[in-house]
Amino acid sequence: MAEKITTRSADYSQWYIDLVRSAKLADYSDVRGCMVIRPNGYAIWEKMQTALDRMFKETGHVNAYFPLFIPESFIAKEAEHIEGFAPECAVVTHGGGEELAEKLYVRPTSETIIWSSYKKWIQSYRDLPILINQWANVVRWEMRTRLFLRTTEFLWQEGHTAHATPEESQEEVVRMINVYKTFAENYMALPVIIGKKTDSEKFAGAVDTWCIEAMMQDSKALQAGTSHNLGQNFAKAFDCQFQTRDGKLDYVWATSWGVSTRLIGALIMAHSDDRGLVLPPKLATRQVVIIPILKGDKAAVCEKAHAISRTLSANGIPAFVDDSEQNSPGWKFAEYELQGIPLRIELGPRDIQNGTCIVARRDTLEKTELALDDTLSVSISEILNAIQQNLFDRALEFRNEHTFEASSYSEFREMVENGFVIAHWDGTAETEAKIKEETKATIRVLPEEPDYISRYAMHEAGTCIYSGNPAAQKAVFAKAY
Amino acid sequence: MAEKITTRSADYSQWYIDLVRSAKLADYSDVRGCMVIRPNGYAIWEKMQTALDRMFKETGHVNAYFPLFIPESFIAKEAEHIEGFAPECAVVTHGGGEELAEKLYVRPTSETIIWSSYKKWIQSYRDLPILINQWANVVRWEMRTRLFLRTTEFLWQEGHTAHATPEESQEEVVRMINVYKTFAENYMALPVIIGKKTDSEKFAGAVDTWCIEAMMQDSKALQAGTSHNLGQNFAKAFDCQFQTRDGKLDYVWATSWGVSTRLIGALIMAHSDDRGLVLPPKLATRQVVIIPILKGDKAAVCEKAHAISRTLSANGIPAFVDDSEQNSPGWKFAEYELQGIPLRIELGPRDIQNGTCIVARRDTLEKTELALDDTLSVSISEILNAIQQNLFDRALEFRNEHTFEASSYSEFREMVENGFVIAHWDGTAETEAKIKEETKATIRVLPEEPDYISRYAMHEAGTCIYSGNPAAQKAVFAKAY
Ligand SMILES: [Zn+2]
Ligand SMILES: [Zn+2]
Repeated sequence: MAEKITTRSADYSQWYIDLVRSAKLADYSDVRGCMVIRPNGYAIWEKMQTALDRMFKETGHVNAYFPLFIPESFIAKEAEHIEGFAPECAVVTHGGGEELAEKLYVRPTSETIIWSSYKKWIQSYRDLPILINQWANVVRWEMRTRLFLRTTEFLWQEGHTAHATPEESQEEVVRMINVYKTFAENYMALPVIIGKKTDSEKFAGAVDTWCIEAMMQDSKALQAGTSHNLGQNFAKAFDCQFQTRDGKLDYVWATSWGVSTRLIGALIMAHSDDRGLVLPPKLATRQVVIIPILKGDKAAVCEKAHAISRTLSANGIPAFVDDSEQNSPGWKFAEYELQGIPLRIELGPRDIQNGTCIVARRDTLEKTELALDDTLSVSISEILNAIQQNLFDRALEFRNEHTFEASSYSEFREMVENGFVIAHWDGTAETEAKIKEETKATIRVLPEEPDYISRYAMHEAGTCIYSGNPAAQKAVFAKAY
Repeated sequence: MAEKITTRSADYSQWYIDLVRSAKLADYSDVRGCMVIRPNGYAIWEKMQTALDRMFKETGHVNAYFPLFIPESFIAKEAEHIEGFAPECAVVTHGGGEELAEKLYVRPTSETIIWSSYKKWIQSYRDLPILINQWANVVRWEMRTRLFLRTTEFLWQEGHTAHATPEESQEEVVRMINVYKTFAENYMALPVIIGKKTDSEKFAGAVDTWCIEAMMQDSKALQAGTSHNLGQNFAKAFDCQFQTRDGKLDYVWATSWGVSTRLIGALIMAHSDDRGLVLPPKLATRQVVIIPILKGDKAAVCEKAHAISRTLSANGIPAFVDDSEQNSPGWKFAEYELQGIPLRIELGPRDIQNGTCIVARRDTLEKTELALDDTLSVSISEILNAIQQNLFDRALEFRNEHTFEASSYSEFREMVENGFVIAHWDGTAETEAKIKEETKATIRVLPEEPDYISRYAMHEAGTCIYSGNPAAQKAVFAKAY
């Protein structure tokens, strides 16, 4: 079995690294800042991809693929974009043994290379909308890396859409941030807040950046997905005009939106514990492990274990048996807890005689006795649903308990060490920067969800927590990953 | 609709390019040698990925992801490997605004970066086998490019396995080339010959390269997939030893195998015609288009068309309706023939009265009348199966008709302009090179399939077609893509 994992209370950062490596989710490679996503980690990404890809297609999108390389002159076409991205790019200067006439940037994001194609595809309103998604790798040079959360290369999807009107593109931006929220909450069991970023936190080249913001177990914030309203910025940069329905010329309206393998880091940090990974059943490739207790008539116990496994799998519950004699049941319990298998079935000769088995939940570690009859699949399925729901409820309760409303800056400074702080903000970048400098907390999100807004009276006018100036609204502040 | 497509007989190369661009499968990008895979083309790749990924998993493989960048010193560790690949690499020299201490190669293939990880993961025979596949983009600088067939960047999968014995790795090599053959024949409807490459055509760093070789409609050969026996070459290069079952130390045995988006090019060139793409039903995201003839009671015709579409889809036959009034039925017929939709249903008010519809096959362009009753889904399904089979049969017949046995070099030179030529070869690289120089034909494959071997008496000794020296076997020669 793997090395011991540091406890969360002892050292949260070290716990995370230990867990990722012990559960064989990922590893640093010999290339600075780049990770190897190991099969256990990649399996989570595959489950995420399948769910998201279906949701993208259900909302009318298709997949395509654009080049990895972006000519320097393209990146330079949108002023804010190059300022934001050029410093963190990897640059190809040689190809096929020769120095290139123009440097190629390894894509940090694909707006520019994609809009150079869209320009050719769009002449008239009849060519719109274009609703394309791409699954790809991207590279952003990082000085301080952390597996899954911040690495030089990562995997993601990036949607890039083109529309005839600003209303349509705004609708798309909101539609996709809601798709992300549904995915985060229903699959990852991760409660998130939808809202906008402030100007200082938005995407380089966007008019508006919408995000979903989540809380980790150390009460820090993590941005889990973004959806950008790009206005006509990229269409103007690439001179992409179209003939409108009433015969005029206009620039095309754009959006882009993405989530990445960073979500795997969020998943780990939201739910896992000192024993290892805790996976929501909907993202587990293997939902049930059956461990036969090999005493007495071993063959009979194994046979029964495999029969149960087949029945569960036939009922849509992916199960497997570990009947290796090399390792003890106790070793196996620990190993599959580390790997985050949602349910464990323990099955001994006595259980079979009694017509029962012991079922242990990964989330609560609770054990229950279940009857070994026709009701088993249904019972197991109910427990898996309960785990999925419990992970969400637990995370939401944690977030609520760690969300504070500050009425003074000194209170704010204390509270922000322990969670999200809701406070009045005067709307200036200056105040935002000062607070960041003094507390390391940033404005994570200006919520756009009616429930959240009314619960915390986000739109109530007041006095800025920092400057004392009038504030039209409150913001959610936190330290973040 | 799209521009006119050049006919195959007028200019086969131009036909291919016209088709790829008119059917919106792919396009050149503004980055030299790199293509944009458009949604229609990417949809084919997604179908291929789904089928292959399932076959890989059924044979025990799991997916993972390794870095895009490879340090120069890694590529250099295997002598043949660097000689083969370094000249065609894209090289990153700057990252994060600074010049790098060591150059990074954009992966042309991942043996070296993967074996630098395997070295850390493998200590004992208990850690073996490792059966990993990766879906990724790779870059090989190309001077002369052709959409899908040869581009600087392309998408592929690369399997990389590690084994305790040479027997096991050899088994894996053969298992995977057979998986590729099954995929090519059952999904792509493309008959292929399994065999080995000669030393001059094998992978840089391999002991042996197995391949599947196919014939296109211009009777040229196309290598559709490879499976390499890497022996202990990469384990030695990365000093990857393991403790064997009997307590000794040995180097690990390796294989690698891959297919790429090149298969889309093969698919097009094998089956398509002067009207456009012809897709085997198993690789078509949309198998049936229903075109209502909008005369008389338009609403009733549309309603019936949608009802048929729903019924087919519910029976596992993805169908859709084009009831737009903007374009004529004739325009639609041509457009969906161009796009390669396997079956078209034409449905007018009179058909509905008669309780029938017209069904047109894309492969033969034949029309049949079918009854609009409960038998429709079954009938459609049978026709789709017949199309899948017919495409294969037709391609196999074409290959057989264009396979010749040469008994003299002058005969050889003529025959090789029209297909595969089977001829005695003295086994030397010198003869191979001379024939290539004089005829542009290369040895495509030394067949390893009993049927093919006996049909053409491949293992019969004789006299080399070129040198007149004794020849222990025959080889399959052809001009190739
Ligand atoms: Zn608001
Ligand atoms: Zn042989």
